[in-house]
Amino acid sequence: MREVAIAGVAMTRFGVSEKTCIEMFCEAACRALEESKLEPKNIEALFLGNCLGDFEEGQAHMAAHVHTALGLPMGSPALRFENACATATVAIRQAALLVGSGVYDVILAGGTERVAAMDTPLATRTFAMASHSGYSAPTGITFPGVFAMAAHMYAGKYNIDIRELQECMAHVSVKNHFHAAMNPKAQFQKEISVQKVLDGFMVADPLHFLDCCPFSDGASAVVITTKQKALQMTDKPVFIIGTGQAAGGPVINNPDMTRIKPREVAAAQAYKQAGVTPFEIDLCELHDCFTIAEILAIEGLGFYEFGKGYDAAKNGETRLGSKKTIINPSGGLKAKGHPIGATGAAQVTEIVEQLRGLSGKRQVKGAKTGFVDTLGGEFGTVCNLILRSHP
Amino acid sequence: MREVAIAGVAMTRFGVSEKTCIEMFCEAACRALEESKLEPKNIEALFLGNCLGDFEEGQAHMAAHVHTALGLPMGSPALRFENACATATVAIRQAALLVGSGVYDVILAGGTERVAAMDTPLATRTFAMASHSGYSAPTGITFPGVFAMAAHMYAGKYNIDIRELQECMAHVSVKNHFHAAMNPKAQFQKEISVQKVLDGFMVADPLHFLDCCPFSDGASAVVITTKQKALQMTDKPVFIIGTGQAAGGPVINNPDMTRIKPREVAAAQAYKQAGVTPFEIDLCELHDCFTIAEILAIEGLGFYEFGKGYDAAKNGETRLGSKKTIINPSGGLKAKGHPIGATGAAQVTEIVEQLRGLSGKRQVKGAKTGFVDTLGGEFGTVCNLILRSHP
Repeated sequence: MREVAIAGVAMTRFGVSEKTCIEMFCEAACRALEESKLEPKNIEALFLGNCLGDFEEGQAHMAAHVHTALGLPMGSPALRFENACATATVAIRQAALLVGSGVYDVILAGGTERVAAMDTPLATRTFAMASHSGYSAPTGITFPGVFAMAAHMYAGKYNIDIRELQECMAHVSVKNHFHAAMNPKAQFQKEISVQKVLDGFMVADPLHFLDCCPFSDGASAVVITTKQKALQMTDKPVFIIGTGQAAGGPVINNPDMTRIKPREVAAAQAYKQAGVTPFEIDLCELHDCFTIAEILAIEGLGFYEFGKGYDAAKNGETRLGSKKTIINPSGGLKAKGHPIGATGAAQVTEIVEQLRGLSGKRQVKGAKTGFVDTLGGEFGTVCNLILRSHP
Repeated sequence: MREVAIAGVAMTRFGVSEKTCIEMFCEAACRALEESKLEPKNIEALFLGNCLGDFEEGQAHMAAHVHTALGLPMGSPALRFENACATATVAIRQAALLVGSGVYDVILAGGTERVAAMDTPLATRTFAMASHSGYSAPTGITFPGVFAMAAHMYAGKYNIDIRELQECMAHVSVKNHFHAAMNPKAQFQKEISVQKVLDGFMVADPLHFLDCCPFSDGASAVVITTKQKALQMTDKPVFIIGTGQAAGGPVINNPDMTRIKPREVAAAQAYKQAGVTPFEIDLCELHDCFTIAEILAIEGLGFYEFGKGYDAAKNGETRLGSKKTIINPSGGLKAKGHPIGATGAAQVTEIVEQLRGLSGKRQVKGAKTGFVDTLGGEFGTVCNLILRSHP
């Protein structure tokens, strides 16, 4: 395998957009190309992540239309990927595999999504299509319910009072809002308090409103290339030194929801390939669709022992300035926003900018090695990437 | 690149099914695995094509659920691809690239789709989401309209009376039904007459009802592996000796609809890689979503000069028994059926069985080299594969 590098990254501001998925992706892609000193003619393939384009704007087959809008060469294929919330990470990992193995030299990858125009009940029901339509959907469960169950199981398994867990989860939300307040691309750029989280209405017990990520519009694009070419495009390439992807679910097959097994398998693949341990990860963008999901993730990725990560945010260990692994310096899905098919690419964008030292007030000092974790569906897909700065 | 082989193929009977997309794909996949003497634990990745699972049965993130249903190893990733009607061919091509480049040794690829339960207006509108939602959809055009325009442009450009072209198109339908009548997996296993086509109601002038492919349910699965491993699985491996994929569209960018440029680019890639010319292709499964589409395809793929392919079916040149390239021996999309996300894998299945000499009454005698052509959307994606029998 050749060494694989990221030459350019970009994302739209997440939030509510008047633009179409195609327009948003083009905005991000043009900036990623500019940052890589590339023109459309240099792109050898387009790997586009999108989940709900057909539902939200009647647009399937989106990769071909993005291809045309960007003016890519006809002989460069355009592909659409969909793996629920892990969509863009999967697209980027495929690009890394194909550049690493010598099939392509330059791939434009990423994702785009419009969700914010749907009202909450419709969006919640629409997202639930990523669950199993035969086993899960008939129970009426949606994703807040899945993660609410996981929170109760977590409290029960580790004998934690549910009110204590709620307070710890609130600290996750507060920490991620604190980070997002320094991120000009975040949907919510303001701090909140633990009390405000706990005073919020209950979405699915024990999850309050501010334990839940928002519905967001946005896009993000990443240029993936060889080390050699990346060094011609930028003096700050970032290297993809390990990847992993695993599949599992549905929840019915996973009676212990405190352990998301595909994550453990995918992360092990990535750590092994990269030759690093969790203790060497300076920062991590991970899948905090709900606050409990961040707690499960920091344990599943090996930053904390199982049952020991719940109070990490409360103790300030995952917050900017800590000496441990900084979790979601972008603000995470919770506060940066979660345009599902774009999320993985935005996580990569954050890590790349951090490893380049370009993250301004929220810069993780001395960051050299970063981790990307994206979870799709009811634990059905986990995709992980480990990135490292140019020495 | 390592030599890439197909070890096993299977498809459900196309038509109307009571099964879900997941169930249909599992039916095909289990038979493809059996044919390859493989167990689920041997599969290193699942590349699943599906277009409308979310619309038709509320099932997104389908690859993960198929992965679980088949009992694949957790560490084997499951990915969903969507490129309109070219979906499964794109998934198979990606599998071929990743096996060829040494990333994986054994990939299960293919596609699945349910469409037949939708009534015709809804299905037609749903399919039209593959067109550009900004430029094409607002005009009200659907795919019968796109290909009807192409037929009129063809008649005008080459100065052919539209009634003569209609008769020639009818011969395409008659020929494909003739082939399908010998295919136990085909949706329509009966012959029709030219007069019956011409007497059918007009769907979109000049296309009659029997110029149009049906809406179909179905699935098809293909095991892609290295030459070395394939020879352990079967004494009749089939090799993928060339692939191509290109992107273009929407129609607004393609004023001459008689030339589908992405097809010419993709086919050139595939011919070049395979080192063969169109004259060496014994048989071809191509994208006859409408009869005019077959005429455009046999020209675009180089079997006929532009403007010269319209009467090939009428002259019996593309029919079983001809000495020229046999077109759509399976019955094609027209008569075998067109479950969109499964179509490309079924085309591959037909070519593989033909190259193994297992096609019974519809066997193309002495077939050694076959071609797969799948078109997605309003000319937005074309994916081509060239397959060759084991010497």
